[in-house]
Amino acid sequence: MSVDLLVEKIKAKGNPSVAGIDPKIDYVPGFIKEKAYSEYGKNLRGASEAIWQFNKGLIDALYDVVPAVKPQSAFYEMYGLYGEEVLHRTIAYAKEKGLYVILDVKRNDIGTTAEAYSKAYLGKVEVDGELFDACPVDCITVNPFPGSDGVKPFIKDCVEYDKAIFTLAKMSNPSSGELQDLVTDDGSRIYEKIAKNINEWNEGTIGKSGYGAVGAVVGATYPEQAVTLRKLMPKSYFLVPGYGAQGGGAEGVKPCFNSDGLGAIVNSSRGIMCAYQKGDWKEEQFAEAARAEAIRMKDDLNSVL
Amino acid sequence: MSVDLLVEKIKAKGNPSVAGIDPKIDYVPGFIKEKAYSEYGKNLRGASEAIWQFNKGLIDALYDVVPAVKPQSAFYEMYGLYGEEVLHRTIAYAKEKGLYVILDVKRNDIGTTAEAYSKAYLGKVEVDGELFDACPVDCITVNPFPGSDGVKPFIKDCVEYDKAIFTLAKMSNPSSGELQDLVTDDGSRIYEKIAKNINEWNEGTIGKSGYGAVGAVVGATYPEQAVTLRKLMPKSYFLVPGYGAQGGGAEGVKPCFNSDGLGAIVNSSRGIMCAYQKGDWKEEQFAEAARAEAIRMKDDLNSVL
Repeated sequence: MSVDLLVEKIKAKGNPSVAGIDPKIDYVPGFIKEKAYSEYGKNLRGASEAIWQFNKGLIDALYDVVPAVKPQSAFYEMYGLYGEEVLHRTIAYAKEKGLYVILDVKRNDIGTTAEAYSKAYLGKVEVDGELFDACPVDCITVNPFPGSDGVKPFIKDCVEYDKAIFTLAKMSNPSSGELQDLVTDDGSRIYEKIAKNINEWNEGTIGKSGYGAVGAVVGATYPEQAVTLRKLMPKSYFLVPGYGAQGGGAEGVKPCFNSDGLGAIVNSSRGIMCAYQKGDWKEEQFAEAARAEAIRMKDDLNSVL
Repeated sequence: MSVDLLVEKIKAKGNPSVAGIDPKIDYVPGFIKEKAYSEYGKNLRGASEAIWQFNKGLIDALYDVVPAVKPQSAFYEMYGLYGEEVLHRTIAYAKEKGLYVILDVKRNDIGTTAEAYSKAYLGKVEVDGELFDACPVDCITVNPFPGSDGVKPFIKDCVEYDKAIFTLAKMSNPSSGELQDLVTDDGSRIYEKIAKNINEWNEGTIGKSGYGAVGAVVGATYPEQAVTLRKLMPKSYFLVPGYGAQGGGAEGVKPCFNSDGLGAIVNSSRGIMCAYQKGDWKEEQFAEAARAEAIRMKDDLNSVL
């Protein structure tokens, strides 16, 4: 299973973290932007090209430190078709460098439409009997709001094409509790209900690592809820956003891990991408700064495991 | 407000329906596919080109009958970058023909990421001080799972750029109740909680039509829930999927409307797109068949209002 591949890469690098590649143009160092604008114009195309150069520099500096990258689709869709093209280029480059690619898309819809999303990212797309890859990644994030018939098409492709998903359970943002923490009439909270569903969906997809294809998104900012969620989904990998810039620290993410030191992969986006903006780095050193921060984060996480 | 524009177009055409433009390649008539494959190959590019020709034919046949179209992003993402490009082309063409464009993307994320999605579709994208359109539409669908700080960035752009959103409240699919119908400890259901939030978010965005920028997705397949939801969100427009192919009829969608005959726009996708596959139509008549079905649907809806 695809999650076994993720576990292998985490073990090989001794690093349970994932670098979020969410490049707003404001994060890109000036010298890269100037060059791209002079070649392609100060517009969506120039911005996309600058983002590509930034991404490539980051991946080159990180690929032997982190096991995985997580591009956030929003920051590519934002630059229109040029941005989409750079997303595809970034995914291909990360895979070429041996990285596990988690595409953060949070897609969700009714069954037949969920199937189309799943084929786009996890499965294959049929054109009159022939199969094609549209935007192939190892793993995507999925929003469980539509219920099981909106999630199962993704799980089907996980099994058929050896892929994985992380389903939103308890998000990292301040207002995540408005819906996710609501208490239902049997006393359990919405995120617990979702966790029970994820645990069920995950059965039958368990690989040799002991983990299954259906993981969960559990925010670093809610360590108490993570304790409960870890128990409810023992065989699901957790994708943990909110470390660093959003305020969660290594102690906060500890409950997301199992006692074997596995079971979670912690994301840092701005913390790594914008490391050069802190301390004494020059902007030309953005990649070196990102690498240093990725190593610091790795050590920080390992110190609590 | 953008919703006023939608109401104007609905009144002008006497038609509270929206044509879903969700073209799987299997829906496209053979003669269109053959031509596209011979020019571009039987691959993602050829499929995308066939879909474009199909979409253009549909829009040409429908633009004076329906007030709006709703492309479903999944069916374009599915064909990779070629598909995305055809989505952009379809949106531009529909706008050129005077149609109101609702892009069904169900995007959702934490605040800063929701901002990026909102800029991509509703707002403007800044590149070092200059503003650009990435994929501009009149309206998108939004998933409320992350809570208010994931929805408010969209509402901000609705107000600033005169746009609208439909937030998922009660979806049309069989499993929508698994999460959306759960009863909370104060006795109200999740979809009711969401409806109350939508109603609050909608305040302050009310236009001269009496409706606001924050609408709701309410499935045609759940008429009883629609009665409750209509009362909870009197000033929100409803986007109503599930008519036709999913089993909801005109009587079923009636509770989604207010007594003024406004307040809802009913979607049909396969019913219109694939009308040529029923009855005595030849595939060359796909556009004529779509038009006939759109007119039949309009009459059907008006018969219960």
